Amino acid sequence: MAENSNKALKSHIIVIAVENKSGVLARIAGLFSARGYNIDSLSVSATEDPLVSKMTLMVRGDERILEQIYKQLNKLIDVIKILDLTEGDFIDRELSLVKVKTPNSVIRQEIMQLADVFRAKVVDIGKHSVTLEIVGGTSKVNAMIEMLRGYGIKEMIRTGKIAMVRDFNSKKQ
Amino acid sequence: MAENSNKALKSHIIVIAVENKSGVLARIAGLFSARGYNIDSLSVSATEDPLVSKMTLMVRGDERILEQIYKQLNKLIDVIKILDLTEGDFIDRELSLVKVKTPNSVIRQEIMQLADVFRAKVVDIGKHSVTLEIVGGTSKVNAMIEMLRGYGIKEMIRTGKIAMVRDFNSKKQ
Repeated sequence: MAENSNKALKSHIIVIAVENKSGVLARIAGLFSARGYNIDSLSVSATEDPLVSKMTLMVRGDERILEQIYKQLNKLIDVIKILDLTEGDFIDRELSLVKVKTPNSVIRQEIMQLADVFRAKVVDIGKHSVTLEIVGGTSKVNAMIEMLRGYGIKEMIRTGKIAMVRDFNSKKQ
Repeated sequence: MAENSNKALKSHIIVIAVENKSGVLARIAGLFSARGYNIDSLSVSATEDPLVSKMTLMVRGDERILEQIYKQLNKLIDVIKILDLTEGDFIDRELSLVKVKTPNSVIRQEIMQLADVFRAKVVDIGKHSVTLEIVGGTSKVNAMIEMLRGYGIKEMIRTGKIAMVRDFNSKKQ
């Protein structure tokens, strides 16, 4: 993202490892929202260690306030580790299910060809709709959704983004 | 899931459409955790309508308390719609990134063959690790992770599950 004089708009990708306990999620989400931080997306799930969950947050807001939030997160006993991946070299992926209107078989065929080009997967075919599974970086997922919007999206759901640091000396795929 | 005399353990998949506003997420997560509900996974992201976000929650807890939580959710002005998909016919998917140890090229080859079988995608290759992108229903993702565990998982991150009702008369893929 281009350096902007209005730093308030900068997006951050933050991965937080937490103890897998009730209430931790609400507390962390609360820390951001109490300071007016927008959480654009959030994914939380278990990890290789059943006692640890990982949250990936996409947030936007003032940089100075983010520093304060980090300090407060570090004080929470259930927070194990915080990683801000915004500047680093990382892999990020998200997943979306999109149900598109298909009034006739010609349109259905078109959508299925589009899916092929974008390497999306057809996961359900209804009488008047096709549901696609789209996986990729945010820009790829957005591009596919934009393309489908022209046909009419009946329903759509997305996971939040997840992200992981690339290995040193790794090859990009 | 089998009917169980101990209903406290039943898992629910809940999709909640909410106004895309700061604080909504924390409030909803708080409603569950304040009543001792475990949130096993959570995904929140934008939808086809930029003013609306959708959350998919996997929760476990007492059925009676869940009824109370629904009532309270329905009272929240920012909650647009609540869908409990537990009993219905739905599509569910999740995504995981798994970084596996590859001490030598033989093991690396093995992992890449496994990825092929499970239709996972290699997204990064480091000197001593390979990172896979795995997409599917929870049981498929779990099976693949179990398989990889034997090789040593360096790092793993998952989105929460997302889910969508199947179209009437649809064909399962």
